[in-house]
Amino acid sequence: MPGNSFGQRLRITTFGESHGAAVGVVVDGFPAGLSFPHERIARKLARRRPGTSRLSSQRREPDEVEVLSGVSPDGRTLGTPIAMVVRNVDNRGRDYAELADLYRPSHADYTYEARYGLRFVEGGGRASARETVGRVAAGALAEALLARSGIDVVAYVAQVGDVRAEIEDEAALTVEAVDANDVRCPDPAAAAAMVETIEAARKAGDSVGGVIRLRACGVPPGLGDPVFHKLTADLAAAMMSLPAARAFEVGEGVRAASMRGSEHNDAFVPGDDPKRPIRTRTNRSGGIQGGISNGEILRIGVAFKPVATIFRPQDTVRRDGTPVEYVARGRHDPCVVPRAVPIVEAMAALVLADHLLLRLGARVEEVP
Amino acid sequence: MPGNSFGQRLRITTFGESHGAAVGVVVDGFPAGLSFPHERIARKLARRRPGTSRLSSQRREPDEVEVLSGVSPDGRTLGTPIAMVVRNVDNRGRDYAELADLYRPSHADYTYEARYGLRFVEGGGRASARETVGRVAAGALAEALLARSGIDVVAYVAQVGDVRAEIEDEAALTVEAVDANDVRCPDPAAAAAMVETIEAARKAGDSVGGVIRLRACGVPPGLGDPVFHKLTADLAAAMMSLPAARAFEVGEGVRAASMRGSEHNDAFVPGDDPKRPIRTRTNRSGGIQGGISNGEILRIGVAFKPVATIFRPQDTVRRDGTPVEYVARGRHDPCVVPRAVPIVEAMAALVLADHLLLRLGARVEEVP
Amino acid sequence: MPGNSFGQRLRITTFGESHGAAVGVVVDGFPAGLSFPHERIARKLARRRPGTSRLSSQRREPDEVEVLSGVSPDGRTLGTPIAMVVRNVDNRGRDYAELADLYRPSHADYTYEARYGLRFVEGGGRASARETVGRVAAGALAEALLARSGIDVVAYVAQVGDVRAEIEDEAALTVEAVDANDVRCPDPAAAAAMVETIEAARKAGDSVGGVIRLRACGVPPGLGDPVFHKLTADLAAAMMSLPAARAFEVGEGVRAASMRGSEHNDAFVPGDDPKRPIRTRTNRSGGIQGGISNGEILRIGVAFKPVATIFRPQDTVRRDGTPVEYVARGRHDPCVVPRAVPIVEAMAALVLADHLLLRLGARVEEVP
Amino acid sequence: MPGNSFGQRLRITTFGESHGAAVGVVVDGFPAGLSFPHERIARKLARRRPGTSRLSSQRREPDEVEVLSGVSPDGRTLGTPIAMVVRNVDNRGRDYAELADLYRPSHADYTYEARYGLRFVEGGGRASARETVGRVAAGALAEALLARSGIDVVAYVAQVGDVRAEIEDEAALTVEAVDANDVRCPDPAAAAAMVETIEAARKAGDSVGGVIRLRACGVPPGLGDPVFHKLTADLAAAMMSLPAARAFEVGEGVRAASMRGSEHNDAFVPGDDPKRPIRTRTNRSGGIQGGISNGEILRIGVAFKPVATIFRPQDTVRRDGTPVEYVARGRHDPCVVPRAVPIVEAMAALVLADHLLLRLGARVEEVP
Repeated sequence: MPGNSFGQRLRITTFGESHGAAVGVVVDGFPAGLSFPHERIARKLARRRPGTSRLSSQRREPDEVEVLSGVSPDGRTLGTPIAMVVRNVDNRGRDYAELADLYRPSHADYTYEARYGLRFVEGGGRASARETVGRVAAGALAEALLARSGIDVVAYVAQVGDVRAEIEDEAALTVEAVDANDVRCPDPAAAAAMVETIEAARKAGDSVGGVIRLRACGVPPGLGDPVFHKLTADLAAAMMSLPAARAFEVGEGVRAASMRGSEHNDAFVPGDDPKRPIRTRTNRSGGIQGGISNGEILRIGVAFKPVATIFRPQDTVRRDGTPVEYVARGRHDPCVVPRAVPIVEAMAALVLADHLLLRLGARVEEVP
Repeated sequence: MPGNSFGQRLRITTFGESHGAAVGVVVDGFPAGLSFPHERIARKLARRRPGTSRLSSQRREPDEVEVLSGVSPDGRTLGTPIAMVVRNVDNRGRDYAELADLYRPSHADYTYEARYGLRFVEGGGRASARETVGRVAAGALAEALLARSGIDVVAYVAQVGDVRAEIEDEAALTVEAVDANDVRCPDPAAAAAMVETIEAARKAGDSVGGVIRLRACGVPPGLGDPVFHKLTADLAAAMMSLPAARAFEVGEGVRAASMRGSEHNDAFVPGDDPKRPIRTRTNRSGGIQGGISNGEILRIGVAFKPVATIFRPQDTVRRDGTPVEYVARGRHDPCVVPRAVPIVEAMAALVLADHLLLRLGARVEEVP
Repeated sequence: MPGNSFGQRLRITTFGESHGAAVGVVVDGFPAGLSFPHERIARKLARRRPGTSRLSSQRREPDEVEVLSGVSPDGRTLGTPIAMVVRNVDNRGRDYAELADLYRPSHADYTYEARYGLRFVEGGGRASARETVGRVAAGALAEALLARSGIDVVAYVAQVGDVRAEIEDEAALTVEAVDANDVRCPDPAAAAAMVETIEAARKAGDSVGGVIRLRACGVPPGLGDPVFHKLTADLAAAMMSLPAARAFEVGEGVRAASMRGSEHNDAFVPGDDPKRPIRTRTNRSGGIQGGISNGEILRIGVAFKPVATIFRPQDTVRRDGTPVEYVARGRHDPCVVPRAVPIVEAMAALVLADHLLLRLGARVEEVP
Repeated sequence: MPGNSFGQRLRITTFGESHGAAVGVVVDGFPAGLSFPHERIARKLARRRPGTSRLSSQRREPDEVEVLSGVSPDGRTLGTPIAMVVRNVDNRGRDYAELADLYRPSHADYTYEARYGLRFVEGGGRASARETVGRVAAGALAEALLARSGIDVVAYVAQVGDVRAEIEDEAALTVEAVDANDVRCPDPAAAAAMVETIEAARKAGDSVGGVIRLRACGVPPGLGDPVFHKLTADLAAAMMSLPAARAFEVGEGVRAASMRGSEHNDAFVPGDDPKRPIRTRTNRSGGIQGGISNGEILRIGVAFKPVATIFRPQDTVRRDGTPVEYVARGRHDPCVVPRAVPIVEAMAALVLADHLLLRLGARVEEVP
């Protein structure tokens, strides 16, 4: 029940503060016998790591994951909990001394203190996006499981500030195409404009928000557990648990509110593939109907606010309520969205892998 | 773990199919000693009931709730599970005979069968919005608990099709103002246009989507359990578990993606009220920062797709994959949004009441 | 998390007070497509019903179960929650008037008030063994699922007071043999002595405790989820959640404490049946090793205290602490054990069915 | 849901194999603001460590705990997850080479393979008692929380083989008295006989079982959540999840089965202490009535089988079913019970701390 675990049948528990000893994750319920995907995990962590492009924070963290448990000496998962730890090495505590007594605007400083009576001042503690390291490692593991089942998850930056990407064929997207530029937007023209937008924000000492979209191909029909663990609900919880997430949508999302049923409904049609005899002509539902996957491409979007750290004077208060002016210092991304791409993928993979396992035994004939 | 329970410390389990014997809910973890709010529950159920205005379905259900357990003979909650049941009386099974063999477009017919191998054909079974009766009854109970703590939840229709309401002061909203018109939009001009939009859709044999917004006043700072049970995450799961929900947002929501940090950040300022010495000047965060409430007004929105049932010929397939044309018959709302207002309130109340209880013992000095 | 739900993948939630409107259960996670076992449920409920022999309480409850949800019109489980309700009809509230202000010794009157500040006085409210009606109905459903998988659960009375049964071949036990006498002990000589013990207690206005043993045949190897959901742990929780349960054991149980390893270890031997190539020569482990089933007969025992209601003067206190003498009146079993037999079976069946489902997907090659 | 987490409001997740890199635990839901009890944890771990007396295994593990998260730089708990890791250093893998292909009798070798298709051969992997290191560290943390509330938990060895201790005043027991001898039995005469029993078993290449009893003083009335999270049920699950546990009892336990109600009932009497106006004259209930604490001393017992590793030839089979003779080698305790004392305390402390937090908000007037 406490808030640091996610998932039902496949459950992760993350731990760690930004400037504590380490961040990490315990993955429980992962099936036994999978060749442990060390490389996939390393690759995924590298994608979220700061300091790899001029667009992101210059914090240097090697982010090498140590696997403490759950893997046999010959490299297969054991079915037991898989604990993974990443050390925090670049802890410049001195940058944070002045923050102990004041609340940074739109950070979690005030709310953590309201809840717990104290907070880990340095680096935002648990509220830092560094907490997502554990999610990404666990998500890579989940992706390896999904890959065996032919499920493939790709996210990309669809919007930065007012710049929106146009992607014609989401099914054809690849991680390579996404990673072809620093902003992780597979629409090259939009990507260039996004880079400009981010650079402009940086030069202004400001930050800017954005949108990530994700599609999953190969999701079989029948995933999602009505009523409260609908795929929509679990994906929404997954995404809205991310730092700075402010909106979530599936399929046509907010646009559906303006549509008529005759525009939005997806007609069923016979499928060409004998393995998929029933398809939909359109996919406004984004692959989920009644909270359960229908086998079409799963499509979601997540909107992120601009990061709260800006290098301009801001009004705030001290713990005792007295007003004070605050100007941030240190290393911070002007736009979190490019680095959030692998994080969104990780959370989607965790939800899908969980539901792949939860699906087992939904019918009595499947019980041996 | 199975999907029909929601909440951690305060947990509801709903049951029932649209055209089965009954729908209902078991509420577990509700504190003992509250005077049972029979009237509040009846009032709330009446608000979601169909057949009460020309805008909604003409199904006639008295929706009288029977309380089976959890209340003492003198009308106080016992701390034990509260089971509430509402009988289904207006089951016109004959309307559904032709549906047994085909999949209605954008309904859950196909996906339920994909998961379970069979489905309750009549009325959509468990996928019907009638499932929400139990949520509303439980939500009214949660509202009674919140009311004791000074927390007040009001939702309203903010958009129908392309018509958007303008609400200047969300804090001042009342249920009475919301219910002043059939469409439950407290902006009278917009309300009139919404009614026209809905009527036009009805006449066209079509349906239309919309948006509900909700604000909660009086939420104390410190609710929300990082990381995965952030208030944002739990609210998102709650709302995206609703039938036809397609998008969720908090605070500025999707608009935040286009904003710069200097536009979005909420400066902290000294408060006028000595009980609330620290406030924010603006409330773009919608009352939640780092997933924890900051004491400002909680603001969320939920977008709903147009209901899938339309009275126009649609392409679909039979179970064996052969194409067929389908035209809906029977009783159906052209727009679900006005009736969803109390449902959205119920889910928000359940999340807030859960977190009010989860908050207890977050600090060691609170443990007796 | 609240206390009225049990099970992980197959989860029951019970509700109801002894003298409220009804008792019942919601079963969530039950696989779809099973022919609903109305008769099995009725038969099982009849076995726990009071008033059916001179050994048990004379309360008259028809205990007819009404199924509110989760079953299709043609009688198959839908995969959705199955709600079952049994009305309380024989509520002689007048018997309890004097109890409102005092605490019956070794009942839950005092502790419920200590927790909740109030209690449902009549009939012990939620603390009554009547709460188990829902467990038994759900357990019968679980047994039907187990039966498909060749798993067969039988419990019997192994001890009443100082009288112990001798059962040579637990595998050969049948429900019919158990139910051949009122005391549900398949050792006829012991059964006769048990009846005498119970009658003697009744005549003395007293009560007497006892032990129930259970064996399950056909449990496949591999059920049980280390570490905290070992089969031993889940069975222990199941049994120790029963009213009046005071001890639980598996295999040799407490006797194992006096044994040496060379006496207790179960040697592995080749099996005669090609489907079961590996067996154990003895079965002191009771079918569970390292918390996981090994395919041998599962054997557990549960000890129950004598029921607290006796018809002799007892010292107790009023709510304000003043001493008072109390003599019970009304209808009460002098020995709860015979009627607890189907309840123990129900709980064991629920645990095993849960683990049958939890077992799915433990290996990566099982994930489709 | 997966099996490596325990607790509701205070939840631990353990991980690690005996001969993997490390064992550890993540504690979630621990209240913020407690001075982190480094010393208490070290002391507790030292008590379970092997190699500290001639009675226990000679494996040398320093068992130094590293705290990775959840503690502020000035040493207070943050309310965030507390991850603790203990490295495995004395991994003599060569001892286990011959075991890869055979199943040791009454170990978990066969059942782990039955479940997962593979196992961590060296040291028993996750099935090793080394898994309890995480429980003990977390339990020490829970004990620190309980200590603030005046709750004090002490366990001791009550039986080894046929030797039983006589303890007159359980309330007066101290950890110091328990630890006064190697066997952790505070009855000196019995302790001497137990040492002899263990030594005799060792010389015979054999092992021997035993019983641990635990008492908790200062438990306030009202802990325990009916129906399925009764204190009895949660304690039973906690104890029966321990390696080698075979029976659990509360209060009079199995003896209650032979008693009459007039012998077993605990009369309520006025208390001398104005803070405890209602007491029981006797405490056969062991401090729990109806699954809820009544404020009297909590008394439970756990029986452990003799450890499966013995140094005598035993029959067993290889993976392919062929018979083989097996003789254990290496380092193993002839009796696990003395070292299990701190483990039993840890699990009891975790259950009580969990329920201390779960108790909050049981009454509506406690909700702020």
